[in-house]
Amino acid sequence: MDSKSFGQIFRITTFGESHGPMIGVVIDGCPAGIAISETDIDAALALRQPGRSEFVTPRTEADKAKICGGVFEGKTTGAPIAIIIENKNVDSSKYEAIKDLLRPGHANYAYLEKYGVYDYRGGGRASARETACRVAAGAVAAKILAQHNIITSAYIKSIGDIVADIKLENVEQLKQDTYASQIFCPDQKAAELMMQKIRDIKDQQDSIGGVVEFVINGLPTGLGDPVYEKFDANLAKALMTIPGTKGFEIGEGFKAAQMQGSEHNDLFITENDKITLQTNHAGGVLGGITTGMPVTGRVAFKPTASIMQPQVTVDLKGKEQTLQLPEGSRHDPCIAIRAVPVVEAMCALVIVDALLLNKTVKI
Amino acid sequence: MDSKSFGQIFRITTFGESHGPMIGVVIDGCPAGIAISETDIDAALALRQPGRSEFVTPRTEADKAKICGGVFEGKTTGAPIAIIIENKNVDSSKYEAIKDLLRPGHANYAYLEKYGVYDYRGGGRASARETACRVAAGAVAAKILAQHNIITSAYIKSIGDIVADIKLENVEQLKQDTYASQIFCPDQKAAELMMQKIRDIKDQQDSIGGVVEFVINGLPTGLGDPVYEKFDANLAKALMTIPGTKGFEIGEGFKAAQMQGSEHNDLFITENDKITLQTNHAGGVLGGITTGMPVTGRVAFKPTASIMQPQVTVDLKGKEQTLQLPEGSRHDPCIAIRAVPVVEAMCALVIVDALLLNKTVKI
Amino acid sequence: MDSKSFGQIFRITTFGESHGPMIGVVIDGCPAGIAISETDIDAALALRQPGRSEFVTPRTEADKAKICGGVFEGKTTGAPIAIIIENKNVDSSKYEAIKDLLRPGHANYAYLEKYGVYDYRGGGRASARETACRVAAGAVAAKILAQHNIITSAYIKSIGDIVADIKLENVEQLKQDTYASQIFCPDQKAAELMMQKIRDIKDQQDSIGGVVEFVINGLPTGLGDPVYEKFDANLAKALMTIPGTKGFEIGEGFKAAQMQGSEHNDLFITENDKITLQTNHAGGVLGGITTGMPVTGRVAFKPTASIMQPQVTVDLKGKEQTLQLPEGSRHDPCIAIRAVPVVEAMCALVIVDALLLNKTVKI
Amino acid sequence: MDSKSFGQIFRITTFGESHGPMIGVVIDGCPAGIAISETDIDAALALRQPGRSEFVTPRTEADKAKICGGVFEGKTTGAPIAIIIENKNVDSSKYEAIKDLLRPGHANYAYLEKYGVYDYRGGGRASARETACRVAAGAVAAKILAQHNIITSAYIKSIGDIVADIKLENVEQLKQDTYASQIFCPDQKAAELMMQKIRDIKDQQDSIGGVVEFVINGLPTGLGDPVYEKFDANLAKALMTIPGTKGFEIGEGFKAAQMQGSEHNDLFITENDKITLQTNHAGGVLGGITTGMPVTGRVAFKPTASIMQPQVTVDLKGKEQTLQLPEGSRHDPCIAIRAVPVVEAMCALVIVDALLLNKTVKI
Repeated sequence: MDSKSFGQIFRITTFGESHGPMIGVVIDGCPAGIAISETDIDAALALRQPGRSEFVTPRTEADKAKICGGVFEGKTTGAPIAIIIENKNVDSSKYEAIKDLLRPGHANYAYLEKYGVYDYRGGGRASARETACRVAAGAVAAKILAQHNIITSAYIKSIGDIVADIKLENVEQLKQDTYASQIFCPDQKAAELMMQKIRDIKDQQDSIGGVVEFVINGLPTGLGDPVYEKFDANLAKALMTIPGTKGFEIGEGFKAAQMQGSEHNDLFITENDKITLQTNHAGGVLGGITTGMPVTGRVAFKPTASIMQPQVTVDLKGKEQTLQLPEGSRHDPCIAIRAVPVVEAMCALVIVDALLLNKTVKI
Repeated sequence: MDSKSFGQIFRITTFGESHGPMIGVVIDGCPAGIAISETDIDAALALRQPGRSEFVTPRTEADKAKICGGVFEGKTTGAPIAIIIENKNVDSSKYEAIKDLLRPGHANYAYLEKYGVYDYRGGGRASARETACRVAAGAVAAKILAQHNIITSAYIKSIGDIVADIKLENVEQLKQDTYASQIFCPDQKAAELMMQKIRDIKDQQDSIGGVVEFVINGLPTGLGDPVYEKFDANLAKALMTIPGTKGFEIGEGFKAAQMQGSEHNDLFITENDKITLQTNHAGGVLGGITTGMPVTGRVAFKPTASIMQPQVTVDLKGKEQTLQLPEGSRHDPCIAIRAVPVVEAMCALVIVDALLLNKTVKI
Repeated sequence: MDSKSFGQIFRITTFGESHGPMIGVVIDGCPAGIAISETDIDAALALRQPGRSEFVTPRTEADKAKICGGVFEGKTTGAPIAIIIENKNVDSSKYEAIKDLLRPGHANYAYLEKYGVYDYRGGGRASARETACRVAAGAVAAKILAQHNIITSAYIKSIGDIVADIKLENVEQLKQDTYASQIFCPDQKAAELMMQKIRDIKDQQDSIGGVVEFVINGLPTGLGDPVYEKFDANLAKALMTIPGTKGFEIGEGFKAAQMQGSEHNDLFITENDKITLQTNHAGGVLGGITTGMPVTGRVAFKPTASIMQPQVTVDLKGKEQTLQLPEGSRHDPCIAIRAVPVVEAMCALVIVDALLLNKTVKI
Repeated sequence: MDSKSFGQIFRITTFGESHGPMIGVVIDGCPAGIAISETDIDAALALRQPGRSEFVTPRTEADKAKICGGVFEGKTTGAPIAIIIENKNVDSSKYEAIKDLLRPGHANYAYLEKYGVYDYRGGGRASARETACRVAAGAVAAKILAQHNIITSAYIKSIGDIVADIKLENVEQLKQDTYASQIFCPDQKAAELMMQKIRDIKDQQDSIGGVVEFVINGLPTGLGDPVYEKFDANLAKALMTIPGTKGFEIGEGFKAAQMQGSEHNDLFITENDKITLQTNHAGGVLGGITTGMPVTGRVAFKPTASIMQPQVTVDLKGKEQTLQLPEGSRHDPCIAIRAVPVVEAMCALVIVDALLLNKTVKI
C-alpha cells in the first residue's frame, strides 16, 4: 500500500512500466505559485538520459516531459502536478527468448513470488526507468529549494576502489564540476582513472559498483521530526529506494563506529554572533533535526546486475539454464553514474517535504 | 506529523519523556488472538536495561511494563495495545546546572531551533529511553514472528576497530551466544578484546562507537513492496531512527560498491526441488522484495555523545562555557551495546508490518 | 496531505483539469491477477457520460480510457494501474468573458483565497469532470467485488419533492431497472414525474437538487475498523467528497433521531442455522463494522450551481457585476442524476479497501 | 490500520477499554508553545461526565486527566502529548450474566465476527467511554482555536420530534446558553418539552434519538483541500465516527436536495470593502474549502441501544434468549445529549488539522 508514493505533504506517485506506453508522476501537495515549465523538467531529465557518454548505456530514447495538470499560465495552482514521459524506441521482442529465465541480481523472481506474475518487458515496473519520474519531480522540488537558497549536489565519490578527493567547500562549484564530467565525478584526476576502469570492465563484459556522495547546503535549522521522522532516516529511506542501493551513511557514517566521543562530537561555537558548529562529523543533523550545517552522506550502489557474460541460472520450472543476454543489449557498466541525478532528486524531495511539514510546528 | 508513529498496518506510537511520569507505546493493527503478557514484555525490556553489566550505564531503573488496553484474557483483541512503563529513580536536579548549555552531539540545540523550547531533564523526548517503548512493541511483534518461524538476531559486530568473526549459519545458536555475552557479542574472543577496550575508554572518560549486525531467518518470499516501500528501505529507515545511528547496510553494503557484477550477482539454483540462491551477497532482497534468503545487514552507531571529559561549548546566549557533566552522571561508554535489542525490535516491527501488508497483494 | 488521494490500501490518486489535455487516475494497491480491459472501463464511463439523455448536460465528449500501466496480458500485475482519459471537445474561450467573476455556488472564490489563483477554464480542478476518474477506478474495484459476489446499486431516490418508492429486495433487478431509466430512477412512475419536473426547471433556466440512495448486498461481516475507520464513516467521507453533496445518511439516517430504542434496535435471530438480524434499521453496520446485512444509505445533492438565469455577483475586485453564463453553456439541470454512477464507484472503492484491510486482522 | 488514529498533522491515537485500568489519548503534531493544563482538560471532561443531570446516565466516575508527556513548564513542547484517564468505579461482574448474549444495537456481534473475540466488560473498546479521550484532545485543540479567535458551539437541535428554535447570530452566547442547559439545548422552551419527553421515555424503559447541530465561527477562508480532503468531508467522517451517529449534514443538508439553484446559491457581495456572501445555504464551504462564512451542520444520533425493556435475542450459539439488562444498569436515555461536547471536540480536531495543513499550501 502506498508503495508507489513517497512523501507526506509534497508527495509523489509514479506509474508506468519500462516498455509500456508511458511513465508518469503525480506530485501532490506542491505549493501554488511556483513557476515551472516542461523545459525545466527536460533539462533535469537530460542528466540521467542514457547515451550521455560512452560510460553509460547507449540506449537513445529522448525523454520529453509533458505537464498534464496542476500548472496554469506557467505556475503551479496547488492542484496535483501530473507529468508524463512517453516510452519511445521500445522493442520488447528481444526479451522473448529469456522471458522465462530468472535473472541474477534482478527482481523478476521476487515479483513472481509476490504477485504470481511479472512483466518481463525491459524489467517492467522494476526497471530503473522509473527513476526518470523521480528526476522530473525533483526538478519541481528544486524550484522550491532555489527560492530558499538551498543547493544540493551529488556526485561520484568512488567507483570500485578508486576514490575521488573532493572538497565540500563550494557546493555551487562542485555542482558545475560534476555536470561537466562525463561520469559526474568532480575530481578530474580520479575521473580519468575511473573512466579507464570502466573501459576495462566493459571489455570484461562485466560491471562495477560505486558510491555517490551528496552535500546539501543552505538548509535552515529545525528540519526533520524527532523519533520516527528523523531527517536522516527519511533521507536513508529515500535513497535506499533507488534501484541498486546497498548502503547509506550520514556524516562520518560507518567511520563513526570507529571513533571516540571526544573526537566525533562537534563542538558548539559562536561565530559572527551566531551559534554554529566547529566541525561537521554529524553531517548536519542532531537527533534527526537539521543543525544548519551542510547535510552530507553517501549511498553505495552495487554493480549492474545485467552483464553480457553468460550466467548459470534456472527457468521458471527450476531447470538449469544459461542466461545469455541478447547481442546488442544495452546496459550501464556502472549504475552509480546515472544514479547521481536521482540521488539529487530524492534529496530535493525529502527536503521540500520537511520544509513544508516544518511550517506546522509552531502556531 | 506522525513523527511519533512507525509502521503502516502494525503501527506504533510512542510517548513520554525520560524524566516524565512514564513512557508508553500504543500498538495499532496487531491481529487478534495473539497471546501476550507483561512477563513477555519485561523479559525483552531486561535486555536493554541499564545496569546489566559494567559495560553499560549503571542507571538502575527497573522497567516494568503495564498493559493498559488491547489484551483480554491473555490475548490480543484487535484493539490498540497500550503499554506503559513508569519512570522511577528519576532525579532531574543534577541537570539544573547545565540546562542552559548546548550539549555537543546532543539534540537540545536542534530541538530549541525547531520548537523554541526543549525539555532538558534527562534529554526529554530525545533521550534513548524512548527505545524501551520500541523494545516493548518488538516483544509483541516477536510473538507473531514466532508463529511464522521467523527468527531475528542482532549482535555487536564491531566496537572501535575490533571486529567479531561471526558465522551466520545457526541463528538460534547465535541468538543464545549473543544474550550470553555481557556485551551482546557472540564471538567470545573478540568480546574479550572489546571489553578491555571499553574499560580503557572509560578510564579516558571517553566513549566509543560500534556496529550492530542483524540476520533474519525464515522470512517468506515476497515481503516488501516495489519502488517506495522496499523491504530494505523500510529497514533502513527503521534502524536509522534509533538514536546514534550513522549508517545502514544491507547484504554486502558498501563493499558491494567495490565489487563486479559477476562477483556480486547471486545465482539461482534448484535445491531439493526448490528454487533458491547459491550465495547471498544481496542480503535476502531483490528489487526491495524478500527472496527467502536470510536478510542480513549492519547499522553503525556513533560514540556516546555524553562523555565525562570537560568540553568547550556555548550557552543559550552564545557565550562560551565549559560543559562538565555532573559527578555521578551515568552514561553508556558504547551505545551500540544497548542498541542490540532495539535493532532486533525494529527489525521485528518492519517484518510484521510487511507480513500483514503482504496479505493484501493477492485476492 | 494526500488531498488528491483516497483509500488506504486500494488507493487512488487523480489528476488533471477539466480543460487540460487529459484527466487521469493512478490506482495503487490493486491485487495482482484481476482481469481488466479498457472496454470494461469505457462501459462504466458511458453511464456518467454527458449527453446520455435530455435530462443531463448535452456536452458530447466521448470518454475513452487508456490503460498506461499496471496491466500485463490483460491482468493486473500488482503495479500501479494508470488510466488516462483525454479531454476532447474543449473550448475554453467562452469562459474568457466571465473569468474574473465569482460564480455563486462555485469554488473559484474558495480556490482563489486558498491558493491565490484558480484555473477558470471549465472549472479547472474543481470541475465534476474529475469524477470520471472515480468511475474508472470504480470499474476496477467492481471487478474485485464481482469475485466476492458483492453487488452495489445506486439510484435516484428523489428529485425536488418527488420521492421514488423503491423495494430493496432484489439488488440485481434494481440495478437493471436503474440503468434502463433515463434518469437512473428505477421507479418508473416517479421517474415520469421527475422528468416532467426537470423539463419545467430547464424552462425556468433553473436547476434542482436530488437524493441518491445506495444499497450494497453480499458484504461479508467484519468489514470496517472500530473507532476512527468505521465502515460508515469512511462511506460518509467518500460520498461527501463528490461535488455538490450536502448530506449523508446510513440506515434510517436522520429518521433514527426521531425513533425510540425499542423501535430502532434490530433484533438478532437465527435463520437456517445462521445468526442474522430481523430488521435493518441500522443499515448493515454496528459499531462501524458490517453485520452481513445490506448496507443502505443516502446522499443529498444540492441543485446545480450553474444556472442560465442572470445572477448578481462581484468581480475579483469586489465590484458588483451580473453573471450571465454564455449562450450555449451546457449544464446538468440536476447533478444528482449523473452522480449515480459516481456514488456507485465511491462505494466500490470503500468496500475494496475495507476488504483488503480486513485481511490483516487475523494471523 | 490506523483505526485508532484521527487527523493528518494534528493526529490523535486513543487506547483503552471501558473496564480496563485506564483510557488514554496521544496527540501528535501539536505545535509547541501552547499553554495547557490538566485543569483545562478536566473542565472539558466535566461536560460529558455522566451524572451531570437526571437526563444522562447516573454513572459517577470522576474523570481526571493526567498529562504524561509533551508538556513542559505548562506549555507544549512539540513532543506527543499523552493524556490518561483512569477508569474508576468499574464493576464488570454484572456483565457476566449477559456476556454470551448478542446485544441489539451493540457492536459485540460485529466485533466477534471481525476479531473472533470481544471484550464484554462494559462494551470494551466499543464503549462510548472512548469519547472522553476525544474530549480531552479537543480541549488541547480548543486552545489553538482560541488563539485564532475561532469558536465552535454544538447543542441539541432536536430530541424525538421536538425541534429547538435557535438563532445562529451570537455563537459565544449560544455556547453559554447551551452549557447552562441541563440537556445542552439553548432554546429553553424546547428544552422543557425535551426534558419532559425524556422523563416519559425513561418511564417506558426506552430511549430516544436526537440531532446535534454545530456552528463554527471565525474560520479563515481557504481551509480544507479540494477533491478528497474537503473540509466538509473530513467533518462528516469525524462526526460519523462518534458512536451512535446515523447521518450528517452541512449547510442546508438534505433540504438542499429539494431546493432550486436560484434559491440555494449564495450570492457574492461586497460589504465594508470585503467580499462576502449574502446568505449561507452552503454552510460555509464551497468546493470543500471554507469561505469565511460560519460552518454549520447537523449530526443525527440514534436512540440508545441499551434499554431496560426485555429484548429477544440469541446467544453465541444462536439459541434464542431474552436479554434483560441487570437491575441498576446505567444508561443514557438519549445519547445525543452527552454527544454534544464530543461533537464540539471533533469539530475542533478537524479545524486544527486543516489550519496546520493549510500552512503548507503557499511558500
